[in-house]
Amino acid sequence: MKSVCFVFLLLSILTVSHPAFATLGFEGEDGYRLWLKYGPITNTSANKVYKSYLQHIKLRSQSKTAAIVQQELRLAATGLLNIQPNFGSINSKLVIAPKAQLIANELWLLPYLNDIGDEGFVIKDKEGVIFISANSDIGLLYGTFHFIRLLQNMQPIENLSIVQKPKVKLRMLNHWDDLNRHAERGYAGQSIFDWHKLPDYKEQRYYDYARANASIGINGVVPINVNSDSLILTPKYLKKVKALADIFRPYGIKIYLSLKFSSPQQLGGLATSDPLNKEVQQWWQQKTNQIYSLIPDFGGYLVKANSEGQPGPGDYGRTHAQGANMLAKTLQGFGGVVLWRAFVYNQNSNTERSLQAYNEFVPLDGKFAQNVSIQVKNGPIDFQPREPFSPLFGATPETSLAMEFQITQEYLGFSTHLAYLGTMYKETLMADTHVLGKGSTVSKVIDGSLHNNSLTAMAGVANIGSDRNWTGHIFGQANWYVFGRLAWDHELTAEDIAKEWIAMTLTTKGSASAKILSMMMHSREYVVDYMTPLGLHHLMDTGHHFGPGPWVNNLGRDDWNPTYYHRADAKGIGLNRTSSGTNGVSQYARYWQKRFSDPSTTPQELLLWFHHLDWDYLMPNGITLWQALAHHYDKGVAGVAQMQATWSSLQGEIEPNQFKQVAMSLSIQLKEAKWWRDACMLYFQSISKRPFPESFEPPKQNLEYFRSLQHPYAPGQG
Amino acid sequence: MKSVCFVFLLLSILTVSHPAFATLGFEGEDGYRLWLKYGPITNTSANKVYKSYLQHIKLRSQSKTAAIVQQELRLAATGLLNIQPNFGSINSKLVIAPKAQLIANELWLLPYLNDIGDEGFVIKDKEGVIFISANSDIGLLYGTFHFIRLLQNMQPIENLSIVQKPKVKLRMLNHWDDLNRHAERGYAGQSIFDWHKLPDYKEQRYYDYARANASIGINGVVPINVNSDSLILTPKYLKKVKALADIFRPYGIKIYLSLKFSSPQQLGGLATSDPLNKEVQQWWQQKTNQIYSLIPDFGGYLVKANSEGQPGPGDYGRTHAQGANMLAKTLQGFGGVVLWRAFVYNQNSNTERSLQAYNEFVPLDGKFAQNVSIQVKNGPIDFQPREPFSPLFGATPETSLAMEFQITQEYLGFSTHLAYLGTMYKETLMADTHVLGKGSTVSKVIDGSLHNNSLTAMAGVANIGSDRNWTGHIFGQANWYVFGRLAWDHELTAEDIAKEWIAMTLTTKGSASAKILSMMMHSREYVVDYMTPLGLHHLMDTGHHFGPGPWVNNLGRDDWNPTYYHRADAKGIGLNRTSSGTNGVSQYARYWQKRFSDPSTTPQELLLWFHHLDWDYLMPNGITLWQALAHHYDKGVAGVAQMQATWSSLQGEIEPNQFKQVAMSLSIQLKEAKWWRDACMLYFQSISKRPFPESFEPPKQNLEYFRSLQHPYAPGQG
Repeated sequence: MKSVCFVFLLLSILTVSHPAFATLGFEGEDGYRLWLKYGPITNTSANKVYKSYLQHIKLRSQSKTAAIVQQELRLAATGLLNIQPNFGSINSKLVIAPKAQLIANELWLLPYLNDIGDEGFVIKDKEGVIFISANSDIGLLYGTFHFIRLLQNMQPIENLSIVQKPKVKLRMLNHWDDLNRHAERGYAGQSIFDWHKLPDYKEQRYYDYARANASIGINGVVPINVNSDSLILTPKYLKKVKALADIFRPYGIKIYLSLKFSSPQQLGGLATSDPLNKEVQQWWQQKTNQIYSLIPDFGGYLVKANSEGQPGPGDYGRTHAQGANMLAKTLQGFGGVVLWRAFVYNQNSNTERSLQAYNEFVPLDGKFAQNVSIQVKNGPIDFQPREPFSPLFGATPETSLAMEFQITQEYLGFSTHLAYLGTMYKETLMADTHVLGKGSTVSKVIDGSLHNNSLTAMAGVANIGSDRNWTGHIFGQANWYVFGRLAWDHELTAEDIAKEWIAMTLTTKGSASAKILSMMMHSREYVVDYMTPLGLHHLMDTGHHFGPGPWVNNLGRDDWNPTYYHRADAKGIGLNRTSSGTNGVSQYARYWQKRFSDPSTTPQELLLWFHHLDWDYLMPNGITLWQALAHHYDKGVAGVAQMQATWSSLQGEIEPNQFKQVAMSLSIQLKEAKWWRDACMLYFQSISKRPFPESFEPPKQNLEYFRSLQHPYAPGQG
Repeated sequence: MKSVCFVFLLLSILTVSHPAFATLGFEGEDGYRLWLKYGPITNTSANKVYKSYLQHIKLRSQSKTAAIVQQELRLAATGLLNIQPNFGSINSKLVIAPKAQLIANELWLLPYLNDIGDEGFVIKDKEGVIFISANSDIGLLYGTFHFIRLLQNMQPIENLSIVQKPKVKLRMLNHWDDLNRHAERGYAGQSIFDWHKLPDYKEQRYYDYARANASIGINGVVPINVNSDSLILTPKYLKKVKALADIFRPYGIKIYLSLKFSSPQQLGGLATSDPLNKEVQQWWQQKTNQIYSLIPDFGGYLVKANSEGQPGPGDYGRTHAQGANMLAKTLQGFGGVVLWRAFVYNQNSNTERSLQAYNEFVPLDGKFAQNVSIQVKNGPIDFQPREPFSPLFGATPETSLAMEFQITQEYLGFSTHLAYLGTMYKETLMADTHVLGKGSTVSKVIDGSLHNNSLTAMAGVANIGSDRNWTGHIFGQANWYVFGRLAWDHELTAEDIAKEWIAMTLTTKGSASAKILSMMMHSREYVVDYMTPLGLHHLMDTGHHFGPGPWVNNLGRDDWNPTYYHRADAKGIGLNRTSSGTNGVSQYARYWQKRFSDPSTTPQELLLWFHHLDWDYLMPNGITLWQALAHHYDKGVAGVAQMQATWSSLQGEIEPNQFKQVAMSLSIQLKEAKWWRDACMLYFQSISKRPFPESFEPPKQNLEYFRSLQHPYAPGQG
């Protein structure tokens, strides 16, 4: 292996001597190793302390998971500290053992293990020895990753006393990947799942994917699109699924499947898929049995039904509850669950779209089986750069609600825009629904504490693809990371998680880290500003959702058109969701009803979500709405320019290949931010008939130019 | 960069201690570095000699290409020898300089440079100093790669005296990649060309791709599918093409484009695309001018016209010559060429398909412009595991003919079957057409020497995709490699090239290398045997071409059906192409007409290509045709089993990750080889009504089972 070293050493030399060709031929850091690079710790005092703990390790377990624990400690010790840990010696300062393997003088640990369940862990110092313990080997793995993260972040490890368990039970990635490897809303290449070559060809990537997920506590994976294909349930494909499940199991990850509700007809040759039909019920029971015979720890089903053309119980006049419960019953004996998506809107309804999920599901509260959770998108429309929290949160006390976040940036610039979503996730999680008075946060709905639900889940629609760096944009890795960390503990701050990620991925230098942190913490707001400021939403172009299309008004359904959402007219702009409009406010708790009903008490960032206001409406700071709109669009663009300047200042402090990748993306982002600003402002001007503020740089192209742009091969189309 | 070293060092340790998790987390050798790994030379005497030459290097040139030469020498010296070459010193034992930079006491090199053109190179020892010289910096780059290859293969480098120039002028890769990154007949992920992110996002992979191509002399690339999309010719996409061309230029690689013949209508809004129409001609001239204004060294056009639904001059009653010449005229002033594909078959013709290309193009001989070459597939049908050479070779003395080989294994097992194609390429190149008497080999047609053609070209349909190891199967890399090497010099043997490739990619150990060589040299014949033995062809299933479908007889055209080609009936099997049949033999020189007309003088491996023979026809070795068929199918399967055994014996001698990848593929190949054997033999038995020979293992499934298999998501569909 010597040669590899020389090549990499060489690279660092070339970097200095030939910057233009720095990464030519070999790639340097290509992003594959994510936040698990384990780069050397140069701080000598920290290094010395850490070494004293990692030189001799006692690991008391023999499972496959324990082998992963051991391997991970080796990787960390070697990478971070340049030592080979000894796993055999007597005098260990690091002891890792599950409850069942604790020896007599370690029984003081037992009390701490009582309340941490299967996945929690304890890291405790006693007389200079660090103990990592848990009720299961998966807990040990989580504890080990936590411990290593402390080292990666150069945290003190003396006198540790950590007891953790996840706040949410199911922490899942949803891949919207098709069986042909197309990834719907995927912007990082194609699906990492090569169904054709499975089950015999097991890509190394499957192991590395599982490892990365385990390192942040993700314990469930849906590898295929919610717009599912019944083929996945055939024996041929279930064998492929089993191969993945076998790979993922030692990492504590269960596999779940999206299903097509009409499978009994498509695969079983039945005349119906009516959930009340006996044969249909039997067909599903047999299918579930078959799956469990292959995958004894199969997680369950994720279902998109009666939405955007997908079949569902509604096709037979049955409710979502009847559909979900029929499936849930087949899983009950196995401990499996149904995740039933709330993202439905009725093909024939005239009700404004943001109201439909609530209308559909609130009346069904209490009707769902215990092993059903309703998976709700964070906002009431569809993963826009900003939405208010969905009114469903807190509105179904007797029904488990799961959070569905989108990690892939369908509406936030694909994989070329830097947008750290930690702030967006926290905005929703910390939102106070007020359904049971102050403090009824969305996070308490999701972790089950508000209404005492025991089935809890958080799902993230993955941004992972076959690109070497997994997510296309290096900063996209941070969104995968922050999703996992928040699913584990929603009380962590977006800022702290960003800091961790920066240290593990890009740099541990304080000044560089602070600059990057500032970029990340502002980045999502920049996107909101240059795409959809002040509560505007759904302004993107048709189908591919790439770039602006606020003028689009000719689609098959009214509520697919941007014009449906912004309602710009000669008088003003915005969608009136007060009682004089669609009355969307009525679905929120009284506290919010009141505030959302009055523009002056509506949070400014949601102003046009709830109100149609005159172009000349005076904003609190004394400028008109029209001027404010222009200022926000400008601010968004300026923010990207600022990020670009900040990043440029980091040249030399970031590994050259990563530096270059991000620099290229930022230049695309700046171009596209201007495109959004210019296209939207020109279009709105064609309606408002008002001049641009003086500070606003006149667009170089006209509206017709922007309307003429076509992007037939934009990636990730649905 | 220290950490990277530790990680890799660690890996080698883990490999020993935990084989089951050897590559977990990190990948070891993942195949990305192809044949340019530059692993350390452990032979101490060779090492010492090489060091003496590479420690001090004089490089006299300042171009971008020279910078690549320098970088390559650094990479090689560091990887192979663990030294940092000094490029500044006086006492160099390695001098690299183009003709224009030769100094007074080096002028003895001049005579050698006279006859080697722009791309040739000279490597000459004089008094212990090695000189690499050329007429251009690209020549220096080729010479440098050649020199490094000698080191990689541990060849002696004292008293070197090498003068080389390529035998073929245009050495090209054709990518059948669509603008949405789908790769038609691609089995290694998606297209490496990310058109959406171009021109701003320049993947490192583009540079590495160019480097790999330059190392084997490839100097032209068509990045998009011959089933083209007119969008590629719009200004927006041409800017993306320009970005690639700028990256490729210093590596000596020109870019060419596939075009859609109807572009004047689709893009120009003209009423016709008739090549004799003035406006059409003007439109193309302007388009060509526009391309050259962006890409001054643009290579030219590749055209699939009037074939499989593509538009072409035939739509207006014009000939291929009229179509090609119209385009050629627009390129003439710029030095560009037209590569016009001969793979055409008339939608309405009843002529047997293998005859059509000849019928179409021979009458046009002499009618094509000087800058047109007709690109001919190696065989008369379509890249089957074995075909006779195309009768077009040698049949158009006044027309330049380019060779089109397929590197991607559309009909040879996709990316899971090990099939070294060097032997197949050589079989065609060395085939003697006899058109001007003995010695009129196909290679002499292609290199222009037979009929004194100056425009010479060889194209390979690429097997390259986004998979980390580029080609899906590690041994697929060998097919990319051998294509390039043979395009440079078709007199090299498949065996010598395989040896080079093994040493550079897998191992330099003699015994392991010999075993791998044996696998490679037999591998393609195994595929022929388990898929299409004895001259059978076109037995694959519909559309995806994955697996056997000899029973298929219901497609839109007769000549899309396997039954059209094998003609199995109660009496016998094979397609009679003698004068009593389709008279395909008439297109060959008299020598072959005679031999091909008589089964006893027809090469046995082409028997059923030319003859319909009784099931009980007696083969020279005394068994019946039916028995011989069974034996061949068995031999193919046994061959794969043998490869698997050989590979298993190499465990520990091959880097673990590569070992595992190939082992998994071989197990798939064995499974699929049996599938081919069993499905074909069961089907043929249903017609021949003859028992299997006793030695033939009875299939475990029945014919209905094999006919029922569906593969809707097999990759690479057209």
